[in-house]
Amino acid sequence: MSVTAPAGFEASGVAVGLKSTGKPDVAVVVNRGPLKVGAAVFTSNRAKANPILWSEQVIADGAVEAIVLNSGGANCFTGSFGFQTTHQTAEKTAEILGVGAGDVLVCSTGLIGTGDQVFRDKVLTGVAEGIAALSTTGGDDAARAIMTTDSRHKTTVFEGDGWRIGGMAKGAGMLAPGLATMLVVITTDAVIDAAEADAHLRAATRVSFDRLDSDGCMSTNDQVTLLASGASGTTPDAEAFRSALIAVCTDLAVQLQGDAEGASHDITIRVVNAATEDDAVEVGRSVARNNLFKAAIFGNDPNWGRVLAAIGTTDAVFDPYDVDVWMNGVRVCSAGGPDRPREDVDLTPRATDLQIDLKSGSAVATIYTNDLTHDYVHENSAYSS
Amino acid sequence: MSVTAPAGFEASGVAVGLKSTGKPDVAVVVNRGPLKVGAAVFTSNRAKANPILWSEQVIADGAVEAIVLNSGGANCFTGSFGFQTTHQTAEKTAEILGVGAGDVLVCSTGLIGTGDQVFRDKVLTGVAEGIAALSTTGGDDAARAIMTTDSRHKTTVFEGDGWRIGGMAKGAGMLAPGLATMLVVITTDAVIDAAEADAHLRAATRVSFDRLDSDGCMSTNDQVTLLASGASGTTPDAEAFRSALIAVCTDLAVQLQGDAEGASHDITIRVVNAATEDDAVEVGRSVARNNLFKAAIFGNDPNWGRVLAAIGTTDAVFDPYDVDVWMNGVRVCSAGGPDRPREDVDLTPRATDLQIDLKSGSAVATIYTNDLTHDYVHENSAYSS
Repeated sequence: MSVTAPAGFEASGVAVGLKSTGKPDVAVVVNRGPLKVGAAVFTSNRAKANPILWSEQVIADGAVEAIVLNSGGANCFTGSFGFQTTHQTAEKTAEILGVGAGDVLVCSTGLIGTGDQVFRDKVLTGVAEGIAALSTTGGDDAARAIMTTDSRHKTTVFEGDGWRIGGMAKGAGMLAPGLATMLVVITTDAVIDAAEADAHLRAATRVSFDRLDSDGCMSTNDQVTLLASGASGTTPDAEAFRSALIAVCTDLAVQLQGDAEGASHDITIRVVNAATEDDAVEVGRSVARNNLFKAAIFGNDPNWGRVLAAIGTTDAVFDPYDVDVWMNGVRVCSAGGPDRPREDVDLTPRATDLQIDLKSGSAVATIYTNDLTHDYVHENSAYSS
Repeated sequence: MSVTAPAGFEASGVAVGLKSTGKPDVAVVVNRGPLKVGAAVFTSNRAKANPILWSEQVIADGAVEAIVLNSGGANCFTGSFGFQTTHQTAEKTAEILGVGAGDVLVCSTGLIGTGDQVFRDKVLTGVAEGIAALSTTGGDDAARAIMTTDSRHKTTVFEGDGWRIGGMAKGAGMLAPGLATMLVVITTDAVIDAAEADAHLRAATRVSFDRLDSDGCMSTNDQVTLLASGASGTTPDAEAFRSALIAVCTDLAVQLQGDAEGASHDITIRVVNAATEDDAVEVGRSVARNNLFKAAIFGNDPNWGRVLAAIGTTDAVFDPYDVDVWMNGVRVCSAGGPDRPREDVDLTPRATDLQIDLKSGSAVATIYTNDLTHDYVHENSAYSS
């Protein structure tokens, strides 16, 4: 059910030929209210796609009626023509729905540099067909329509006490913060206002999508949107809602990790006993971005020397000669020297656990990444040609 | 002739079984004077190998008699036993040569975590055999003995006006600053003092080895050493000597790039019209470390969107919508939008030229990198196992 699990939302996914495969490529999600609350976080990449530039304006007042998302083209670096395409997408949506264009978010994903007249015509066709197909059970269709190289659609639902959160996500490559590269739409029928929605969403993405670093490459089109309809009539406890939102975002982030392009291992890097949370994140990310470590895991090789070499590049507080490293539960390095033999480590399962003990404090952080594989190289050497 | 091209130097390379292949694995370079000047720059990785910890002490007074280098084991994260191994290596070298151990540099390269008693015994055997084999024509033997995954040995010679510079280098993976991952020994018979040697070496590595970023992975064992014998009796013009040293370092850096593990393209990234040199380096490095860009080049795909997405992650001064990108002489992106069609770009040659015009000033920098290939993943998934 994804985004249509909470009351007050309708969604759809239609195929208009943006994808050469003929699969669904335009999704529409509409908030029927009574509240029309919206919050969003965007890529921190300075090279922002046209839909990002548009959506940043739309979200400023915290009011959102609908969101239109297309796959099959990122509409990024497509100049003023591309921005007009995004603008027209919102205008047409608003006209059919009888709302203001300034309350319509737009997201695009696909190849950077794609956004010509043919692209525009198809997206506008998708708006009309998508709105005609809206239904209260259309959440899964919408989730399928935003897929690019994803092998499966990604959805989640959280059951609160009288309220729900639903979500959908796409993303399989260029997965790094902030945020990871993705489009995410999360809906709720809880009664919350725009300021609360914004605060909760930022708190949740900080410890979920922002901790996903599959390949170190930051996107131009990232957007995570939270829409609240208030249709349940229930005002949740703030802490309970935030916890639920974190659970929803983490669930979707882990689904993205599990479907990362070409990956054969999902690596959970837990950094413990750091001086600060920032230190823990910096150390975890330095390992997540180390190609030599990632290639070693692909080869089922517990090469802890590459872990220490990676964390040595950070500014975090630690003594390189007092660090412990565990792989899948086996302490392979203690106090900066060899510990248990490599033969004791079984790296054949897809789920891989790396723990780094910095012995410098009590802060912790978890980073989600993947291995570097032949298939990753293959998929990304042939994506646009 | 490499390091024995300048007068006053003897070198050798011997095989003592550190490499399972039986190939040469210990190199010795001795400065016969009359000057015994030395300067060195080291990895900026905080996780430093034992030979680095030792050599940092040796170089402090600017006097060096000899340098011993081994492949087949990095002696990194091998604890106090490993440090004692390095110490004994210097002591034994000093004893045989009749000099002070505090004037003997040591370098090691190979697998991190390797440095047990067997390793120690072999290195000490290598010291004795290496010194016995010293000759004024041993430079090439020494260059071969420091190879790890290198497919060929790397040497260079510069002919000055009455003086020479010779050099040897190893390095094929974990190639990123500061420095790139490598061992380099440069010799000269010019008359220079320790302060001059240090200043010239830092100036030269800054624009050569520090601009090489093959895979973004920083080593624990990097060391670039300059030894001066003064045997030519000629005091060079300071500017001429510095220019020659930059040429020598750049030559060796480009040789390292050309032999990078698994690479099929040598990519020269030129960033022009940057506000500052730091900006130019930051932008060049962000592209050099972008796996999606690197995989695209492997696939001969002029995917300029990935270039813009990469530079968008930097803090450099530029307008994302006023950047030009050229690939192999073809402007594929102008003012942040598509320009010439991808079909116009021929990426089949190994030598690949990427130019990024930031239109924000007049500073320039060149970064040397490689593509991300199946072979890179393969080599680095199986290195230690």
